[in-house]
Amino acid sequence: MPGDVCFGCGSSNVAGLQIRSFWDGEEGVCVWQPDGRHQGWAGITCGGIIATLIDCHCMATAMATAVRREGRALGTDPQYRFATGRLDIGFLKPTPIDRALELRARVIDVRDGRKFYLECALSAGGVKTVEASVVAVLVYRSNDPQAHGAQFGLGARRAL
Amino acid sequence: MPGDVCFGCGSSNVAGLQIRSFWDGEEGVCVWQPDGRHQGWAGITCGGIIATLIDCHCMATAMATAVRREGRALGTDPQYRFATGRLDIGFLKPTPIDRALELRARVIDVRDGRKFYLECALSAGGVKTVEASVVAVLVYRSNDPQAHGAQFGLGARRAL
Repeated sequence: MPGDVCFGCGSSNVAGLQIRSFWDGEEGVCVWQPDGRHQGWAGITCGGIIATLIDCHCMATAMATAVRREGRALGTDPQYRFATGRLDIGFLKPTPIDRALELRARVIDVRDGRKFYLECALSAGGVKTVEASVVAVLVYRSNDPQAHGAQFGLGARRAL
Repeated sequence: MPGDVCFGCGSSNVAGLQIRSFWDGEEGVCVWQPDGRHQGWAGITCGGIIATLIDCHCMATAMATAVRREGRALGTDPQYRFATGRLDIGFLKPTPIDRALELRARVIDVRDGRKFYLECALSAGGVKTVEASVVAVLVYRSNDPQAHGAQFGLGARRAL
């Protein structure tokens, strides 16, 4: 996210992960190389860092999907922003720190026009180590100021 | 975790969050102050940072619970270590960056002697903003080397 401060995806956060997400067909893809700062156990990527990758990559994929569904290009108005409603992450096996990680995400459902349900898998060296179900909530539309602040009323996660 | 490299709780990771967890009755408690590096949106704590706090605090609470259930003090042998099996996190509302965050976790169930189920809530200024269900898996016992490596066979998260 150019100029953003986000620890996961903000280009202006020098302490952050600065991940970048791209389209590959119907999937959002992110490739990212961890280093020693990102360990949990020695040699293994920290679960919280993995959660950060999944969170930011899924929000980017949700945003890009919303724009694509309107037949628009990224960067055209109106601008959309998503907030995380739910992260449900299953750690299948340890994720090594010494190779690039690949995340693939896709939107599988949209409800109420603003709740985007995604599935995301993370693999290391071609081996899937983590899978997640994520809910992204459209909370800001640049052409509808009323939508801003909807994040304050997501309600209980059970309802998602 | 003294001497550990973990991004979330390792005391030797200077780039990490260095959280510390303590007992308060039956709950594990962690108080931690975010700063500008940990933002998601401006002024709001990054969801991935929140996931990191929950992950590490729940693993510490699971470990301390396992030791306490044996009537032992922390630091006595055998040493136990837990890996994250599942993080299911509901973001109820934005978590501000400008005040201390408090996490409270407790073990609500133990299955197969090694799967610890926890609930965890995060609040900011007394307002609960995040709640989570977490599965911590006992993967290392210093008196049973065979247990080490069990993390490689957690199986699908559906089974948790």
